[in-house]
Amino acid sequence: MKRVGIVGGTGYTGIELLRMLASHRGVEVSCLTSRSEAGKSVASLYPWLSYYGSLHFEEHSIDALSACDLVFYATPNKIAMNEASSFLDRNVRVIDLAADFRFSERSLWESVYGGPHGAPQLTKEAVYGLPEKYRTEIAGARLVGNPGCYPTATALALMPLVEARVLSSSHVIVDGKSGASGAGRSARADLILAEASDNFHAYTAGGHRHAPEMAHQISKMGQEVSVTFVPHLLPTIRGIEVTAYVSTSLSGSEARDLFLSRYQDEPMVSVVSDGEHPETRWVRGSNQCMIGVYQQQPGHLIISSVIDNLVKGAAGQAIQNMNLMLGLNEFEALPMCALSP
Amino acid sequence: MKRVGIVGGTGYTGIELLRMLASHRGVEVSCLTSRSEAGKSVASLYPWLSYYGSLHFEEHSIDALSACDLVFYATPNKIAMNEASSFLDRNVRVIDLAADFRFSERSLWESVYGGPHGAPQLTKEAVYGLPEKYRTEIAGARLVGNPGCYPTATALALMPLVEARVLSSSHVIVDGKSGASGAGRSARADLILAEASDNFHAYTAGGHRHAPEMAHQISKMGQEVSVTFVPHLLPTIRGIEVTAYVSTSLSGSEARDLFLSRYQDEPMVSVVSDGEHPETRWVRGSNQCMIGVYQQQPGHLIISSVIDNLVKGAAGQAIQNMNLMLGLNEFEALPMCALSP
Amino acid sequence: MKRVGIVGGTGYTGIELLRMLASHRGVEVSCLTSRSEAGKSVASLYPWLSYYGSLHFEEHSIDALSACDLVFYATPNKIAMNEASSFLDRNVRVIDLAADFRFSERSLWESVYGGPHGAPQLTKEAVYGLPEKYRTEIAGARLVGNPGCYPTATALALMPLVEARVLSSSHVIVDGKSGASGAGRSARADLILAEASDNFHAYTAGGHRHAPEMAHQISKMGQEVSVTFVPHLLPTIRGIEVTAYVSTSLSGSEARDLFLSRYQDEPMVSVVSDGEHPETRWVRGSNQCMIGVYQQQPGHLIISSVIDNLVKGAAGQAIQNMNLMLGLNEFEALPMCALSP
Amino acid sequence: MKRVGIVGGTGYTGIELLRMLASHRGVEVSCLTSRSEAGKSVASLYPWLSYYGSLHFEEHSIDALSACDLVFYATPNKIAMNEASSFLDRNVRVIDLAADFRFSERSLWESVYGGPHGAPQLTKEAVYGLPEKYRTEIAGARLVGNPGCYPTATALALMPLVEARVLSSSHVIVDGKSGASGAGRSARADLILAEASDNFHAYTAGGHRHAPEMAHQISKMGQEVSVTFVPHLLPTIRGIEVTAYVSTSLSGSEARDLFLSRYQDEPMVSVVSDGEHPETRWVRGSNQCMIGVYQQQPGHLIISSVIDNLVKGAAGQAIQNMNLMLGLNEFEALPMCALSP
Repeated sequence: MKRVGIVGGTGYTGIELLRMLASHRGVEVSCLTSRSEAGKSVASLYPWLSYYGSLHFEEHSIDALSACDLVFYATPNKIAMNEASSFLDRNVRVIDLAADFRFSERSLWESVYGGPHGAPQLTKEAVYGLPEKYRTEIAGARLVGNPGCYPTATALALMPLVEARVLSSSHVIVDGKSGASGAGRSARADLILAEASDNFHAYTAGGHRHAPEMAHQISKMGQEVSVTFVPHLLPTIRGIEVTAYVSTSLSGSEARDLFLSRYQDEPMVSVVSDGEHPETRWVRGSNQCMIGVYQQQPGHLIISSVIDNLVKGAAGQAIQNMNLMLGLNEFEALPMCALSP
Repeated sequence: MKRVGIVGGTGYTGIELLRMLASHRGVEVSCLTSRSEAGKSVASLYPWLSYYGSLHFEEHSIDALSACDLVFYATPNKIAMNEASSFLDRNVRVIDLAADFRFSERSLWESVYGGPHGAPQLTKEAVYGLPEKYRTEIAGARLVGNPGCYPTATALALMPLVEARVLSSSHVIVDGKSGASGAGRSARADLILAEASDNFHAYTAGGHRHAPEMAHQISKMGQEVSVTFVPHLLPTIRGIEVTAYVSTSLSGSEARDLFLSRYQDEPMVSVVSDGEHPETRWVRGSNQCMIGVYQQQPGHLIISSVIDNLVKGAAGQAIQNMNLMLGLNEFEALPMCALSP
Repeated sequence: MKRVGIVGGTGYTGIELLRMLASHRGVEVSCLTSRSEAGKSVASLYPWLSYYGSLHFEEHSIDALSACDLVFYATPNKIAMNEASSFLDRNVRVIDLAADFRFSERSLWESVYGGPHGAPQLTKEAVYGLPEKYRTEIAGARLVGNPGCYPTATALALMPLVEARVLSSSHVIVDGKSGASGAGRSARADLILAEASDNFHAYTAGGHRHAPEMAHQISKMGQEVSVTFVPHLLPTIRGIEVTAYVSTSLSGSEARDLFLSRYQDEPMVSVVSDGEHPETRWVRGSNQCMIGVYQQQPGHLIISSVIDNLVKGAAGQAIQNMNLMLGLNEFEALPMCALSP
Repeated sequence: MKRVGIVGGTGYTGIELLRMLASHRGVEVSCLTSRSEAGKSVASLYPWLSYYGSLHFEEHSIDALSACDLVFYATPNKIAMNEASSFLDRNVRVIDLAADFRFSERSLWESVYGGPHGAPQLTKEAVYGLPEKYRTEIAGARLVGNPGCYPTATALALMPLVEARVLSSSHVIVDGKSGASGAGRSARADLILAEASDNFHAYTAGGHRHAPEMAHQISKMGQEVSVTFVPHLLPTIRGIEVTAYVSTSLSGSEARDLFLSRYQDEPMVSVVSDGEHPETRWVRGSNQCMIGVYQQQPGHLIISSVIDNLVKGAAGQAIQNMNLMLGLNEFEALPMCALSP
């Protein structure tokens, strides 16, 4: 039985790690730290996770966490970068679910997130935790930067095309939509049901931090791209859909075949039937990414990609990475069936 | 590996049976029949259940289903009653998720559902599938009538009181609220999102079929009750909450202790902390029932009880019954953690 | 053109006052005060109220407001009671949308809200702003305590019965459900869409402040009642439904006739057709109250009543009261048609 | 008092016409025809429209409707085209809310909607009912084709750019999202709350009928465009948002100024403050279109536009056209304030 720790397990990604790890047959959650909730039990804070019985949040302590084989950082940005090396020094693997290790180039990270990076020497070592692209590297990694939610949905939507270098223009348009849980468990007036329900709007249309992550990571896959990315807030709890618009000389059916071929051995990615459109409820609570490929005019292609932002877009992908890093079955504890209806 | 069949697995209870049985380690779904969808694969109809690979719906056939150890009827009322005996004769156990076997008295059933019962001789043999009350009887049963969703939430809310015979009035008021999946997967204009979302109303306030089931089954637990029951339609996908109002001389804390004591060894029922109120999202997708007990004035008691109508209120409870009937771990394949957020 | 002022117009009741007063042909909003938003324009804070052009929130000032004919307090509890007399002294009428003037007995108010009342001499003078009961008194009033949302829906549901003194038991059960706007525009984590959507639960089941208001006001209508009241949080933006359970020897049709007769001349209250159930969407944005009357067993009666909590339950009723107090058409500016779908 | 008739007033556009016309001071609804609901009163079908008292749906009759000054067709496609000339012959004006008269070129219409057009001679005469573009023409028209919902939001989002001929590429990408009322009041299983709530997906990504309407109408405004249009289904009742991606050498602030200038005298279109994003709830129930303009990279521009699909996208715009055609105040009966929250 491997032992894992979670730092900051009181947000939605932490809760989701706990939900899924409860059914893991090779791993136990042995340490949970939180500055705000230390001393409280998981069950008292989250009655639906009473499975964890007496497990309590502890004061944050690198020493206590060092007894684990792997530590998840389910914290805001700029926390993991200051502590990761302490764990690596003690042979404890680290997965950061925030953005600290998503850029291999420190300067790019600094231009997006501001201020000096706390562990510049580690940005090159860290592996981008997209198993469908970096399975082998992740398996050998000490440190993984877990991808952002929008970048996961987008990278899987464009990967077959850039790997095959079939884009005829480097400019890619990504229209993203995310459920409200993407904003975290924060007491914001604009997120309360009376404001956010029965409502829809774009946000940060002038530029969102996930656009550079997309451009950086997708460009590394084979073809340089620039990305216009506009996210929108969905009145749903979970779910991300991105509709990507690209230029290519491929026909719709050629493109579809390319996707089918690329993902035929990937249990976590599926291409929907011809004429179908992937729905966010089809991946609610599961670790799947579902993709549809469409064409209206020659020269242009449309890709629609859906994930659960908290699962494949965060905690589920982190567990997939953990399984690889600890030599376990990659798909252990990852829900295969969505909760639908 | 035990083999189970599902008749009519194209509604929400059928889909939920499939979702949960996918993770069952002692049972496989070997036969699935549907008049309307015969020939189609599970995966083509429900892309989020692609786990089932090539499993197809077949034309309904008692012979084909007889190769199973147990058959679930996830059909409308008045189907199972006409076929159950064929299976019992072949030593195949049957669980009906509809109402055909929820009344031990045929005449009562006929007054509620109308027309003659198709298998009057079986109504007495059938066991009411509420494991927290009839665990032993279910384990030995050939035929189980799976409780209705509202009656499950209500029976668990009142059972400790009627078993202890502490109601001071036989008249019980039950104000129920159910998510829209309780109405099934039916193309009804009053259920479309534009009508049912951001909306709330009572229905069948003049009398609902679940009231006689409640009165009948709760009365059998120790104290005769009459039930006023008003259901309401919630703009949620899943979830039932019932608020029951009863008269008793017990104080609020005495009542709370009674509930804690009654359910202390029941993993599927929990009493929430003092001052908390159970929320339907705390049981979303799980087989739990969560209960709160409150008092405003001496002599009167309030009980709030929540379940997922499709799980503890239908398919989950059916699997719990199946596990008992087949001699398996009672809780195998029943999700312990809810999907929340 | 009469001039009105609004104190604290930045919550939902203030916004609703502005929405409806925009179409009022006999009244203009001439002064708007807010401690938190002074200096900002209505249009900048609420782009959908750009009708108000350059109208700005001012620093709170009794002098400035005194140029008005009537002032609305759309503030939290315990604000109006400290300032009302200043306005009355200057012949400015006052409507408090909070609870300061809802009890004619100061001691009762103090037991419910705590601490000494700031204007005990005014509690007896203030009129309870339920026009269907106190139309004449309101027309002559200087000071009106606008009823709470749940009490409005409940009082209209029980008024015909207590006026006719046909309750056979003084104990009344009220199961209430309210949309999330009832909690106001507050940044609370438990109200964010990811927590409150697709969810349902009771709250303050041990006792809510609206229960004494109901008992007090309904008892004054003709028959002493005690009230068990359990509110629940609906995942809707607007809408209140209360289901009241009472004992009476009236038959269902006798009761229905009593309601039809009582409300036949009340344009803001309607009794739905026999067999129908009032839906909250039928009153979305309108000032209507819709009521259904049902019977399951002799001796017991069920009443379902719906209002828009922000309109008939707050700002709309306040405008109805204002119209009466200023000698205008009682129904001016009150939306008669709901927004449905 | 002008008299208007409505054909097929039982869908959402018909209901919305009735809701808004109830407050019109210069028009009365004198005739309402419906094949399915003839004989029933408005109030019995739509209790929230009881304002209409005894108004009944009649059997469809051109003669009866001919006593009106203007007739609205709130019917499916291909109804109005067969009857419009009968009204024009009798000096009754006609507004079709369906697609029969949205294309000035018959052949284009036939390629999109199939089959021969029923009144080819009228397609050239009919005016496209976008008042912000064709105010004068509409005022003089006998026959108006009311724009589609997506095309309205899109045309207003692109009109300033194409009129100024500043697009540097003719290819325009339009990512649209619509609330569920856009699909009408139809009993479809995929629209029921249990399927459509907490869900999101694209539809007809291979091509939607509104794309040719957009391309046709926008091209007529000054610059030829081709349109890639992907609509998505929002889990909201109302509201359309389109995000348009265009190429232009204009800077973001130049573009913003262009929009501000173009719409400064248009009460129904507003440009949101710099940095804000228009929200669908800001136009819920109102006839407004709100637009935001953004830039991420030089050469590319993003426009986000929101309307209420049933108001500015259908019935509200139809009333705006009616007002023009009948010589009334263009904005009479059009709600200026949205219902928010």
